[in-house]
Amino acid sequence: MKLYSLMKPGAALLMFGAMALPAQAQDAAVATAVPTHSVFIFNSLLFLISGFLVMFMAAGFSMLEAGLVRSKNVSMQLTKNVALFSFAAIMYYLIGYNLMYPLGNWSIGTDDTGGYLGAFGVAVLEAVGVAPEATDDLSYASTGSDYFFQLMFCATTASIVSGTLAERMKLWPFLIFTLVLTGVLYPIQASWKWGGGFLDTQFGFLDFAGSTVVHSVGGWAALTGAIILGARKGKYGPNGAIYPIPGSNMTLATLGTFILWLGWFGFNGGSQLAAGSIGDIADVSRIFANTNAGAAGGAVAALLLTQIIYKKTDITMVLNGALAGLVSITAEPLTPGLGAATLIGAVGGVIVVFAVPMLDKLKIDDVVGAIPVHLFAGIWGTLAVLFTNPEATFYGQIASIIIVGVFMVVTSGLVWLILNAVMGLRVSEEEEMVGLDKSEIGVEAYPEFTKI
Amino acid sequence: MKLYSLMKPGAALLMFGAMALPAQAQDAAVATAVPTHSVFIFNSLLFLISGFLVMFMAAGFSMLEAGLVRSKNVSMQLTKNVALFSFAAIMYYLIGYNLMYPLGNWSIGTDDTGGYLGAFGVAVLEAVGVAPEATDDLSYASTGSDYFFQLMFCATTASIVSGTLAERMKLWPFLIFTLVLTGVLYPIQASWKWGGGFLDTQFGFLDFAGSTVVHSVGGWAALTGAIILGARKGKYGPNGAIYPIPGSNMTLATLGTFILWLGWFGFNGGSQLAAGSIGDIADVSRIFANTNAGAAGGAVAALLLTQIIYKKTDITMVLNGALAGLVSITAEPLTPGLGAATLIGAVGGVIVVFAVPMLDKLKIDDVVGAIPVHLFAGIWGTLAVLFTNPEATFYGQIASIIIVGVFMVVTSGLVWLILNAVMGLRVSEEEEMVGLDKSEIGVEAYPEFTKI
Amino acid sequence: MKLYSLMKPGAALLMFGAMALPAQAQDAAVATAVPTHSVFIFNSLLFLISGFLVMFMAAGFSMLEAGLVRSKNVSMQLTKNVALFSFAAIMYYLIGYNLMYPLGNWSIGTDDTGGYLGAFGVAVLEAVGVAPEATDDLSYASTGSDYFFQLMFCATTASIVSGTLAERMKLWPFLIFTLVLTGVLYPIQASWKWGGGFLDTQFGFLDFAGSTVVHSVGGWAALTGAIILGARKGKYGPNGAIYPIPGSNMTLATLGTFILWLGWFGFNGGSQLAAGSIGDIADVSRIFANTNAGAAGGAVAALLLTQIIYKKTDITMVLNGALAGLVSITAEPLTPGLGAATLIGAVGGVIVVFAVPMLDKLKIDDVVGAIPVHLFAGIWGTLAVLFTNPEATFYGQIASIIIVGVFMVVTSGLVWLILNAVMGLRVSEEEEMVGLDKSEIGVEAYPEFTKI
Repeated sequence: MKLYSLMKPGAALLMFGAMALPAQAQDAAVATAVPTHSVFIFNSLLFLISGFLVMFMAAGFSMLEAGLVRSKNVSMQLTKNVALFSFAAIMYYLIGYNLMYPLGNWSIGTDDTGGYLGAFGVAVLEAVGVAPEATDDLSYASTGSDYFFQLMFCATTASIVSGTLAERMKLWPFLIFTLVLTGVLYPIQASWKWGGGFLDTQFGFLDFAGSTVVHSVGGWAALTGAIILGARKGKYGPNGAIYPIPGSNMTLATLGTFILWLGWFGFNGGSQLAAGSIGDIADVSRIFANTNAGAAGGAVAALLLTQIIYKKTDITMVLNGALAGLVSITAEPLTPGLGAATLIGAVGGVIVVFAVPMLDKLKIDDVVGAIPVHLFAGIWGTLAVLFTNPEATFYGQIASIIIVGVFMVVTSGLVWLILNAVMGLRVSEEEEMVGLDKSEIGVEAYPEFTKI
Repeated sequence: MKLYSLMKPGAALLMFGAMALPAQAQDAAVATAVPTHSVFIFNSLLFLISGFLVMFMAAGFSMLEAGLVRSKNVSMQLTKNVALFSFAAIMYYLIGYNLMYPLGNWSIGTDDTGGYLGAFGVAVLEAVGVAPEATDDLSYASTGSDYFFQLMFCATTASIVSGTLAERMKLWPFLIFTLVLTGVLYPIQASWKWGGGFLDTQFGFLDFAGSTVVHSVGGWAALTGAIILGARKGKYGPNGAIYPIPGSNMTLATLGTFILWLGWFGFNGGSQLAAGSIGDIADVSRIFANTNAGAAGGAVAALLLTQIIYKKTDITMVLNGALAGLVSITAEPLTPGLGAATLIGAVGGVIVVFAVPMLDKLKIDDVVGAIPVHLFAGIWGTLAVLFTNPEATFYGQIASIIIVGVFMVVTSGLVWLILNAVMGLRVSEEEEMVGLDKSEIGVEAYPEFTKI
Repeated sequence: MKLYSLMKPGAALLMFGAMALPAQAQDAAVATAVPTHSVFIFNSLLFLISGFLVMFMAAGFSMLEAGLVRSKNVSMQLTKNVALFSFAAIMYYLIGYNLMYPLGNWSIGTDDTGGYLGAFGVAVLEAVGVAPEATDDLSYASTGSDYFFQLMFCATTASIVSGTLAERMKLWPFLIFTLVLTGVLYPIQASWKWGGGFLDTQFGFLDFAGSTVVHSVGGWAALTGAIILGARKGKYGPNGAIYPIPGSNMTLATLGTFILWLGWFGFNGGSQLAAGSIGDIADVSRIFANTNAGAAGGAVAALLLTQIIYKKTDITMVLNGALAGLVSITAEPLTPGLGAATLIGAVGGVIVVFAVPMLDKLKIDDVVGAIPVHLFAGIWGTLAVLFTNPEATFYGQIASIIIVGVFMVVTSGLVWLILNAVMGLRVSEEEEMVGLDKSEIGVEAYPEFTKI
């Protein structure tokens, strides 16, 4: 473990020198800088490690949502989550990746006038055992690692939607929506910022890891869906009555939250996009520490606030507080110090505590609280960039939030409406009462347990 | 996040150059190639990261199996999984590692005539703080990292068996079988390919990460066990009646599947065995992306097929479809493109949907579907190498599948039969009805929940 | 997968040479030694990867404890775990980090006379995009990565306490205790060893990853709390009667154990503090393999022993056996060989099997078995250093165990007593009977399931 002697620069250098001696003996002198091929490897490693962490977030969303719905709808929720992740992988390969990263080959617009619609074509990785000269970008990372990492972001966006619309939406219209979201909607708007499109070049929009580009996008799609779909039977009564519908399994909801928390280190840390220099790895380290601070701030804020307001703590609020803290720090996890990161996350936690009952008053039935967590905290996080990053402009941030929001509300609303007209979004009242597992899945989640 | 400017080689190089300036100032020029010591570190890191991912698959199998058995047998299933993983660690240390990697010191055979039985002796790691000259192989990776990674493969093989034989097999005969499987059977046949034995040198057998060497081996042992053990009481009735016995917890089964999916990036990615050059890290990246594509293909195929055939989706089929996709892409996760990888996985998903009822017709009671997933999809994956890797030969693949299959059927069948004769494999009818948790473990898994 | 040809040094070197040719062509010669900047990156990567693994242990503790309490107290247990992890992040930032690593600026004592109380001040990370010359210690790792890793150790210490005191302690006194433990008590005693304080410099105390500094510290705090708090109602009857209170969910307890097992690779492996040389990465590899061996030894010992003593295996004993094995190998995971590591872990498993009933005889009610696992096995592990590390002295180890123990018993006892006097530690009898979820959280963990 860390010893003080290792921290005294002189002693530590001596120790290192001693250890490295056999190697040094073979070289004229120990080199200082990282060789360019090592940079490529470090960057690719960052993507692969971050990518598998973000991939695991699919399990996190599954557990969170399975824990927050009633047991009669759990198999459906699990099926949706596994299926959306799988469909995302196929759609991002077929369309999404090149639509998001046209590398200048815009279908509509140019790098100079502003890119609006990316390129069409399937994703193609570098050849097996690629030679250094033949890599797509030797100064960056392997295309496979980049693709793997970016795909996971696309899938995350779809994961956000499923929770809000749980317990009443049919399987197949949801999955068809997922195809459009992951193949078309997410990649197009992501290209505007991360593909070098017009939000990046003309608005100077800053969104480090996607408070807007990922989280608010999922949140907008969830919001339009929730409005068009309507609330669950029995959620809202006459005269503004609101009936709580408790989730079936808090342990799994907590597990899901911790998995998401873990995955977020990859989500934010990998978005540094580089780990092959002293500055880059130190930045990735800052991001890890800040991401954790944001989550902690959100959880503590929600814990204290529910205790003060309701005289009891509410574990679902604490979990959503942590998640809101994570979303809040996602637009800028690098420039804040640890204290600022904690506060930015804490505001996210506060937002959740107030926004959940507010949505209920508006009779927008968000089963898992994804709209407060991903949309509202996503907007807050995007604005919070202004406090710690001097390169952010109020106009650039607010305009981009609005542009992305309008785009998502219009397009996702249209898709929901078309699906509703063509095949119906909602299960029948009877099916809703019986539970979606029996009506559409045919496998109950807990056949031996439920007393209902 | 990924910016377009980073993708323009010129701009990116300038940026990198700027960042690296302080370092460059100290060197005459920035080096290009990866120093040999860094290669060793990158390779070892790949093993360590991949190894802990594969280790976590033990949790995945545990959750999958606990979710797919009835609650009265859950504690038993958990005990078996923790115990088999622990026994594997001890047996692989005592016997397995050197039996699998004799480094030319074959007990039977030679490198030239063909190696058939490896070396005997406990595993020994490199000394503490080993000097570069004293490493076992400076051009490869640390022995400790290699041992750690390979051990996890051995344990995985045993994990495959426990699910098939659940709900009716006694604890101790199962664990004794595990000792033989992990200490002797797995390492011997693995040495034939990965230890440089006769399947590698004389048959040109190609099995990148073990569709045959790991998955079919576990599958064969499960198949022989299932036949000798017989079906659970109440599973099959007269006149070919088949009674479904639903698993107790779909959420945990889904969690288990996602954990296995995550672990598979280490399983396949680590099998590149190197990450210290541009070509190697790009290959590892390809493997990550292809592994994910295979899983997605399998899940989607099972989803669509069950919807078409049964008019309802079946979450257990979707989960097993994803796993079959993963097994299918395991024999060759490197050479396919993303589209081919998706299709190879999809065929795995199709196999599962048809093989599960087929086994039931044969009255082979496979509680979790491990035989379709690991054996049938493992055979398919081994043959699928022929489509994308020109170095594979039909004869080499098919002969190796048969040789490994015959070896495993004969040896595992013998061990099961001896154990059956000596101590009995199966619990009594009454114990089976009451549940294995009460009869053999003494701790119920869910004492407060079950209504039965 | 590993091929024999790769293991023949000559062949492997040739192969490597061939692969590296394009790079070599650009350099005069392939360098051997790791450049100093690469060392910094490797070390930082080790901290980041190890750190997220240890972070995930928070989920492991949550699942383990949620599985081992009754369902009526599960939401409380989850809330405590999420909250303590979040509070730890804030307190370690505000006070803990500099208190633990004063870098010579002791508030009481000096490096020469012995450091006793560290420095006060919030943690500050290196600047964004830090230049190599501006890093805090270019020969070590980024401060952010070190902070991230060390924070997770601090949080782990608090996680140990919550399980023992479950099912009867109020939320807020527990959380206030956590603030003191993570902000003050843990960092102070950790500074004595890892901050270069008097235990390190004057007693030659050896504790590689914290059998004493982390695990026994959590264990002492749990023990004093358990004594002051008293046993759960109904646990102990007259005439020495002991009534078992079974945990509600063995699957989640098993999942928690596997997550902890996984996290421990980061816990012990990261404590090497360096991965940028051949010797260091080989040591990290040894540590991974030994850590796994220790866990396996503990699980197998508990499995065999419970079978022999009770004629049935007990899954909770097997799980705690594995954890005790992990704690036992934590004080010295580097110097043992694989066989010794297995035995050291096995003794830990034996300790658990005997200590759990012993504590019950003393009417010390430890709900999850954390005192045997973390305190008793922690002491054993600290003493076991003497068997494999010649630098350890009996006096240094035993004196340090006692000094840390006395410090923790006195300080944690005082904090418990003050909290008890000021706000009361324990819920009312009625609340205990009804369950803490209803009385303090207001959200039941499994509203649809429990039959009670």
